[in-house]
This record gives sequence, C-alpha cells and structure tokens, in this order.
Amino acid sequence: MSELNGSVSPQQLSAQAPLMRRPLRIALFGFGTVASSVARILVESRPEGLELTHVYVRSVARRRADWVPSSVTWSEDADAVLASDVDVVVELAGGLDPAGDWVRKALCAGKSVVTANKKLISVHGVELERLAAAGGGDLKYGAAVAGGIPVIPGLEQGLAGDRIERIEGILNGTCNFILSKMQEGAEYAPVLAEAQAKGFAEADPTEDVGGFDARAKLTILMRLALRVEVDPEEIAPLPITSIAAVDFSYARDLGCTIRQIARADHAEGKIAASVGPMLVDLHSPLAWSRGTENMVVFSGHYGGDVVFSGHGAGGHPTAVAVVSDLLALAHGSRRVKVPAAPSQLSAEFEVPHYIRFMVNDKPGIIADITVALASEGINIRAIVQKPGFPPHALPFVMTVEPCTSPALKRAMECLRGKDYLLEEPLDLQMLE
Amino acid sequence: MSELNGSVSPQQLSAQAPLMRRPLRIALFGFGTVASSVARILVESRPEGLELTHVYVRSVARRRADWVPSSVTWSEDADAVLASDVDVVVELAGGLDPAGDWVRKALCAGKSVVTANKKLISVHGVELERLAAAGGGDLKYGAAVAGGIPVIPGLEQGLAGDRIERIEGILNGTCNFILSKMQEGAEYAPVLAEAQAKGFAEADPTEDVGGFDARAKLTILMRLALRVEVDPEEIAPLPITSIAAVDFSYARDLGCTIRQIARADHAEGKIAASVGPMLVDLHSPLAWSRGTENMVVFSGHYGGDVVFSGHGAGGHPTAVAVVSDLLALAHGSRRVKVPAAPSQLSAEFEVPHYIRFMVNDKPGIIADITVALASEGINIRAIVQKPGFPPHALPFVMTVEPCTSPALKRAMECLRGKDYLLEEPLDLQMLE
Repeated sequence: MSELNGSVSPQQLSAQAPLMRRPLRIALFGFGTVASSVARILVESRPEGLELTHVYVRSVARRRADWVPSSVTWSEDADAVLASDVDVVVELAGGLDPAGDWVRKALCAGKSVVTANKKLISVHGVELERLAAAGGGDLKYGAAVAGGIPVIPGLEQGLAGDRIERIEGILNGTCNFILSKMQEGAEYAPVLAEAQAKGFAEADPTEDVGGFDARAKLTILMRLALRVEVDPEEIAPLPITSIAAVDFSYARDLGCTIRQIARADHAEGKIAASVGPMLVDLHSPLAWSRGTENMVVFSGHYGGDVVFSGHGAGGHPTAVAVVSDLLALAHGSRRVKVPAAPSQLSAEFEVPHYIRFMVNDKPGIIADITVALASEGINIRAIVQKPGFPPHALPFVMTVEPCTSPALKRAMECLRGKDYLLEEPLDLQMLE
Repeated sequence: MSELNGSVSPQQLSAQAPLMRRPLRIALFGFGTVASSVARILVESRPEGLELTHVYVRSVARRRADWVPSSVTWSEDADAVLASDVDVVVELAGGLDPAGDWVRKALCAGKSVVTANKKLISVHGVELERLAAAGGGDLKYGAAVAGGIPVIPGLEQGLAGDRIERIEGILNGTCNFILSKMQEGAEYAPVLAEAQAKGFAEADPTEDVGGFDARAKLTILMRLALRVEVDPEEIAPLPITSIAAVDFSYARDLGCTIRQIARADHAEGKIAASVGPMLVDLHSPLAWSRGTENMVVFSGHYGGDVVFSGHGAGGHPTAVAVVSDLLALAHGSRRVKVPAAPSQLSAEFEVPHYIRFMVNDKPGIIADITVALASEGINIRAIVQKPGFPPHALPFVMTVEPCTSPALKRAMECLRGKDYLLEEPLDLQMLE
C-alpha cells in the first residue's frame, strides 16, 4: 500500500485497530446544558475508549454535580487543565473569548479539540485547522452545525466524493420554532416569549432572529461542502422580525409557508449566499420542519439532493454529536479534509419575490408600483389582496418573476416618499 | 496522548495529514452502472489522493470504455489484479460469488476493500470485518445501504455517541417507486413493467418486491446502529405484491399511505425486526418519499429522531458513496466500529393492524370476524366499507388496536374455510 509522509505504514495504522489501549482523557470546558449532557452520556453509557477526567468551570462551588464520578477533577484554572495530561479539550463555553484562547492553547500543545462553537469555527476555523495540523492534534466540530444531526460527518465522510453545488438549510431552531408557531396562527412577540421561557431563545434574541447564528453555520457548511472560505460578514442576514401574521396568510394563498432559510450556491464559478426569511413551497422538504427542528438539503452534481433533518439543538442532541466526535478520535478516524479556497460572494440569487405592501388605499397605487417595477424590467407574476382589511391600513401582496434583490430594491426606491405607503414594503425571496 | 497497540503515536498519525504522498491505487471489479459512474467521477473530478489503475471485467472487449485513461489496465484475470500493487479493491460486481472470494483475497493480502454489496455484507460482514482487521486493510461499505445517502458514515461518525433504539426505513427504491405510483392510482403490473423498462427493477423482481434486498440492508443497519448481529434469515419479509389499488384507497381514508418499511427495535433487551408493506401516516416523514427515494429514521435515546433521505440507488448517487469511502481511506479516516453482539429476534411488534377482507357478501360476516378477533383478545378500532363495489366481490377493511402479527394470524385461522372469503385476508401493520 501507500507510502506516507511519516514512517507509518497503513499496516501499522491498522494494527492499532479498533481502539487505542488507554482511553482518551477528556476535559470539559464549561458545564452548561450541552456540557452536562456530554458528561451524562459519558457517565451513563461509558463508551469504550473515553474517560472524563477534568471539568473546567468558573465556579466549581456553583456547578459541581454530585452524579459525576469523584475521579473527575473540577477546576477553576483553565491553564492548569490545559497544561494537564488530558488528550482532548471539549470546548462548550461558546463565544470567541476566552474559548478561542483555550482552543488555540490546546491545539498548540498537540491536544485534540472537540467543540460545538459555531461562532469560533465560522470566524477562526481556517486558522484553527492549521494550528491542529501543525500541533498534531485533531479539531472536530460536528456539533457546531445542526446539533444532533450528523450533517458535518455525513458531508465529510459520505458526500466528499460529490461536487456539492447548493446548500439550503433551516439552521436555527429558535427561528423555526417561532415561524412554525406563527404558521399556526400565533403572533411573533408571545411566541418569542414562549421560546425564551422554554430556554431555547436568549434574553437578547438578536443572534437567532437576526440571522447571525444561521449565518455562522452556513459559512461553515460552505467551507466544507462548497469548498469556499467566505467571510461571514459578507453575508447580510435579514431578520425574521419583519414577518407578520398577515404574511403567513398570504403565503398560504400562494401555496407556501415562511421559514428562515440559509442557503448558498456555487456553480459555474459564481458564489451566492443569503440568510433570512423566505417563502417556501408547502411541498418542499423545508416546509415539513416543525418546532426547533433543523434541516439541511445538499444538492450534488452527481448524487442529487440529500436531506438531513432532526433535532438541531438542545443539550442531549448536541451532546450526541460531541460524544460521536470523541469516539471518532478514539477510533483514529481522521476527518476528510478537502481543501477550500478563500473566496468572495460573486452573485445574487435570481428568484421570484414576494412583496407585501401596507398602504392607505387610494387610486393609482398599483399603477405606481407597476411603473417602478418596469423601470428595472421586473415582471409581475401575481397580485393578491385578501378581503377584510380596512382601506386605511391595507396589506396586499405582489409576486414578481425571478430578479435579484438589489434590482428589486432599486425599483422600490422609486416609491420612496409616496404618502400612501405606511411602511417600507416587505421583500421576501421565494425558494424555488 | 494515548499509547497505541503498535508503535504509532497520535502525533505520528497526524504528521501524515492530510494526505498520503502517493495516491491510493484503485482497482474496480465490475464495470456496470455503478462502477462506470465511479470511474467517471474519478476521471472527471480527479479527487486528490485517488488513482484508478485497474479494471477487472469478464470481457474486456465488450466493456472497455474509451474515455477511461489509457494508463488504466483492463484485465479479465481477477487473480492477477488481486496480486498486483493496487491498494484498494472496489468490488461492484454484487452477489455472494465470486465477489466474496475477491474481497476475502484482497483483505487477506492486506488491501482495503470498498464495496456496495449489501448481500455480501449482510451475510458475511462480520467475518469480512475480522479479515480486514487481521490483514491490516479497511473494509468500507457506505454504498451498501441507501446508495448516495450517507446513512452509514453519518451513523458511524455522527451518531455513535447515542444509543439508537429504533430504525425505520424505506430502503428499496424499486418498491418505493411502485408503491408511490400506486398511491397516485396506477396498478401494480404496469408500474413494475415501467420500473423494469427504466432499468431499476430486475427481470426477476423478487429480490426487491419480496423484501430480500431491504432485509439485507436492514440487518446491516441493525449491526451498526442497534449493535446486534442478526441472521437475515430470521426476518421473514412480506412481499408488496399483495397490495392492490383498493388498499391505497382505504389507506387514504385512514389518513395513511402504503410503503415498504424495514424496521427494527432494540429496547429493554428485546429485539424486533420486520420488512414489508405497512400503512404509514401521511404526516410521517416516511410518507414524503417519492419515486426511487430512500429514507431512514434513527431514533436515539439521547438525540431523538434523525432523518436521512435522498437518492438511494442509481449509478451516480451510489458512486458518490463509493468515491467518498475511497477519499476517507486516502485521508486515513478509519471507521468508528462499535462492537455488536450476535443476537436473535426476541420480540414481535405490537402495533395496530389493517386487515382487508375480500368477501362474497352475506349476513353474519362481521359477527364471525368479531368472534375470531375476540378469541385472541384483539379489539376492533374501525370498520370501513367504501361504496361502489359489487356484493359478490366486496373489499372491506377493519383496523384493530395494537396486537402482534402472530396473534392476529391465529385469530384469522378461525375464519379458514369460510365460504364467503374469496381470498386470504390481507394483514398490514400500521406504523405509529
């Protein structure tokens, strides 16, 4: 068989199979929902080859759990844990700092790192992968996208042979919970409050509803699936906060619902990406997702569409992804790393749009809008106006044939200052 | 980090990353639909680290393709190819013989094997994995279940940290094509003929419609997900050939459709498994599958349900799985092998049943049936009789509360010989 860069032959590699003799010594950084679920699985299931040895928390007194074996060292000194003989640091504190610092130190010390930190991987993933390669450890983040759904391992190990050209995903469970509840008739504010009460929306929900969380995950998937490294800041996410109950009603009339969709295309050298609420055909798999579910559809040049769905968040599902990454480390299963190229977005999606106007009704409005759209060569597909609204606050909807968002925005600029417009028209792309 | 059974340290393992210096030398065994798609991807995409060097076919004259690079050696001598310096044998001939012989020889010679052969892996997988471990090669069969959907890699690399308790799958594209066409109103025979004409049903369709193909795949998934090694012969599959158009009509009235479902449970030490047509709620993900699509739902103790779906068959999707396995080999990504225990089925599913009777109508039939069901303590849930059928060939349906198939079979035995029964009642389990 093949010669390797080192002195290791495949025969030697295999001789170690299936498991290393000494279990991997594992340090948890953080002990929140996910980390305590990881500890719970390690303690209950005792997977072969894994041993929890350290937990770093800011306050041991406040966090220490009595069901964790007494052999585990609890510590408030991150550097001491990093300097110990642990093999793997499991970073579950989240955020860029100090998590990034711990991860760098661990990788530089030749340890492996498992993390669920999408923000860190999205912003610094390329640098951290290089550190891992240089240090000799491995960096795994299967839990960073879609929690308990094995999107990243499935992609790396099972779709690497394809050329993925498109990603469409529901990557934020909080938004999906809110939007699928609104689809059933609820209003935004009370549903957000319910999500906050249930613990899966933050007190400040901007990360989720603003699309920043989904954007971080999308850029990770773009790197792994489309093989392009794009700065997340290049993608301007649209918040779901502009969606009202009336939009679900109009969407239903159009055979659609509304979901927060993160998507990206890489075809013919052009790269497009967007995150925000979109109209989704009720027959699309993406419309099936309910509650906090996540779903990802990859479209491959050779294999066609592959769909993954399940519980994208929550302590236990995310912990399954973390423990699976740990098992893969214990089994010597290295990641399949296909090189990605630093890239910039270079295209806009050309798709039909849904435009919802809110007007103080008077003659000539449709004529104005028609002229505005025509100025950009945009064709109207349908005009829908439901009965039962007062003329002084009348919502109605137009759908237009495929065009780009910038073109539509320019067209809408022509209407700026019109006295009958009660608010900025809401522009939603329609997924086709 | 950890000590290994050999002299290899994790640092050395990593030093080779990401790729071995010399590409893996690959021999294709077979050059049918899937194998030629594999060659096509290798030639077109030129994935780093993979080199097609040999093709074994029975008749080179008949099979040689002019688009394959001239550097590739075509051979009719399997042993010569096995004795050559290839690193990986890609077995795509299918069947137990001579494929099994080639795979054994390759593994014993320390080569790795990638195969899509579900029959071979289902029957001899455990033995072959041992040969691979002993020989120092790796055995990968991501393409053996659900073709282009990364069910096996996703399971091994992303769900190993969970304890999977249930598998429900649509694992045979031909059956799904036939049944989803019948759902739209087609009859069995012409749809089968269409599937045969399109090339995804064999001249003898027994493997597919009889459930044997799905059974082989199910036992592979049971080994990997439920961690039990079950002899496929223990599972008696039910054919889809007994399903008539009238059953789809009655199913729809019950809010269901009919799909060939392969499923297995492993909970509280009990193992149950079945393959055959079942009633599936129209709201279930399994009812969404159309055409030749495959779908698998794993239910984990910790992570809940995870759904995979996509194109389960066809040259290109299956080839993606094969090439992905090859890339994983090239990247030194070993499989995560969690031990499975030799096991026997030990439970029956206790589920509601759909029973369709075909009778020459006369008074007292329902009374007879009621008495028969009561003899086994089986409660009736609903009786449905659609209008428009002649009384001398009247199909009607009963659904019953959860019971086992053997209990229902015993109850139906009481009706044997009744002159009004025009055919054996059709018993379908209902998936809940």
